[in-house]
Amino acid sequence: MSDIDSAYAIIMAGGSGTRFWPLSRADRPKQFLSLGPDSRSLLRATAERVWALIPPERTFVVTSELLRGQVERELPELEPGRILAEPVGRNTAPCIGWAATHVRRLDADAVMTVLPADHYIGDTDAYLDTLRRGLEAATHGDYVTIGIRPTRAETGYGYIEVGSELDPGVFRARRFVEKPNRQRAEQFVASGGFLWNSGMFFFRASRILEAIDIHLPGLGKQLQQYDTAAKNGQETELVSETYASLPAVSIDHGIMEKVDSVSVVPGAFDWSDLGSWTSAWELSPRDELGNVLPDGGLSIDSTGNFASVPEGKLVALIGVRDLVVVDSGDALLVVPRQRAQDVRHIVAALRDRKDDGR
Amino acid sequence: MSDIDSAYAIIMAGGSGTRFWPLSRADRPKQFLSLGPDSRSLLRATAERVWALIPPERTFVVTSELLRGQVERELPELEPGRILAEPVGRNTAPCIGWAATHVRRLDADAVMTVLPADHYIGDTDAYLDTLRRGLEAATHGDYVTIGIRPTRAETGYGYIEVGSELDPGVFRARRFVEKPNRQRAEQFVASGGFLWNSGMFFFRASRILEAIDIHLPGLGKQLQQYDTAAKNGQETELVSETYASLPAVSIDHGIMEKVDSVSVVPGAFDWSDLGSWTSAWELSPRDELGNVLPDGGLSIDSTGNFASVPEGKLVALIGVRDLVVVDSGDALLVVPRQRAQDVRHIVAALRDRKDDGR
Repeated sequence: MSDIDSAYAIIMAGGSGTRFWPLSRADRPKQFLSLGPDSRSLLRATAERVWALIPPERTFVVTSELLRGQVERELPELEPGRILAEPVGRNTAPCIGWAATHVRRLDADAVMTVLPADHYIGDTDAYLDTLRRGLEAATHGDYVTIGIRPTRAETGYGYIEVGSELDPGVFRARRFVEKPNRQRAEQFVASGGFLWNSGMFFFRASRILEAIDIHLPGLGKQLQQYDTAAKNGQETELVSETYASLPAVSIDHGIMEKVDSVSVVPGAFDWSDLGSWTSAWELSPRDELGNVLPDGGLSIDSTGNFASVPEGKLVALIGVRDLVVVDSGDALLVVPRQRAQDVRHIVAALRDRKDDGR
Repeated sequence: MSDIDSAYAIIMAGGSGTRFWPLSRADRPKQFLSLGPDSRSLLRATAERVWALIPPERTFVVTSELLRGQVERELPELEPGRILAEPVGRNTAPCIGWAATHVRRLDADAVMTVLPADHYIGDTDAYLDTLRRGLEAATHGDYVTIGIRPTRAETGYGYIEVGSELDPGVFRARRFVEKPNRQRAEQFVASGGFLWNSGMFFFRASRILEAIDIHLPGLGKQLQQYDTAAKNGQETELVSETYASLPAVSIDHGIMEKVDSVSVVPGAFDWSDLGSWTSAWELSPRDELGNVLPDGGLSIDSTGNFASVPEGKLVALIGVRDLVVVDSGDALLVVPRQRAQDVRHIVAALRDRKDDGR
């Protein structure tokens, strides 16, 4: 049995994003929504895609205590021990490190892939090819990431500078670049030498834990204690007591930017991190006037709009252009598509007035 | 007891307008909505205003069979016999004529006022003064109407040309003019000699029935038969069988434009026939940026909008201007204020596809 055939998947499903308010809420974040052309939730779609390569028995989902029940309902294939519930979110390094301790206890040599639960993937076959290539590269001991060929000078994504080809379809990653300004983003795209950082990774569980011990030693020490406690049946209690004290640092910043031998596999599939309602409009099937309307929706003299309403509700647009109109049942948002990212100001205002509509 | 102190009120509440879709529906038309600054329904507000002069015992409400139950719930003060339910709508002349037969049977000399149930009235005291003056003028045998001083060159209203003063505050009505084009409307307003036709009338019941006998003899004959049938307890059956065959003609066109001795009482109160969501925006309390928002509504960089959502629902507007956003629970409308009248196209489209959302 090759390493790839015994690989593990880690799905990160603890996010509590606010960009899809009012559909996304603190207790119903984006990964549980269906956005874009797929009627499945993003989490379900993520799991079903990876399960073509890695079965549910070797899949861990890391989420929050608040969301554990929803993950169980969404992915009934998972055994209870495969859902890791963080008491609080501490960014991706603790999340991935904690999951890696579980994987390593099951298989000391195991390769694992780490996948966000809330991304859009346009072509499953191409995606699975990329996953295979990434897992293969990780068997050599590399820290591997998927890079997406940029289609525009996006300032909302991090970039990866691509180096020499190591194996067919696998390249040295020269450096990670944080979200650039417009001018730099345009340079990156024009150069052809940069890819978008997709936030999808591959490494041996043992290798990422070694790197954590070196570059985030405080986290590494705590993870060793979790590992020991797990062997004594006391992990849950220790995690509950100490998780909040872990450093909230991303795997990119805390590890990937610091280790040597990082490689990148270019992904030849449409991809979006679904950063706002604008992404949902871009990815959804549109009518000939560019409108995304629910079943039965009516529009007159209206172009480029995105409308989402509860099932069975009628929406009618007259003479409006490039609007996002989202009705969650208990809240209603109207915003121009170009300002969809400002939804966060509404969520902040609701938080300020302690409104449970956030 | 003077004639005024024994006057009757006829409230016309059979309308099935579509201009306030999606709040107004075939089975929940405008008169049952609260529009503008008043939290009461338009029907309830109309009744309570007139009851300051004329008690419920002398108030008739003409409505449709479909709406009878809603009228009963909205105006529990009315005895059952005071609600006249038309099997089908046949415009205002049959409606007023039929009500007049009921009034005349109760009091052969009675003066009555006829009031639409779905108008906005801005100043109740001034309105009641006008009603008193109109009833008084009607005791002289005149056909009397209320004219509203125009505040703009409105092309959506009919106009009345004002003649000589007959009594203090009561003028000869020289002629009725149908909805004019923009140029004529501007001339009317500039001349100072025209008033808006409010659709509110006063006359003796016997006098309007005489005029119907002369100018709409077919209607007059049928009304005489209703009168006879009522004395024999058979009115309901006869109305049910024959009402649909009555001529669908307005009291303005069928009678007021044809009789002599029409007088007009200028009304010195704010008034609107609430012709579209734009009127609702104009009449509602607005925030400093011109927005009409429900309780708890949030707006960012938004001006001149009108939003209505079910109670308890949160509405958030970002970066939008001069929109009408109306959520009825089962349907959602978004339209620029300037195009609010185009809502009728949505209702027509729903009718075409036999959708019960109309």
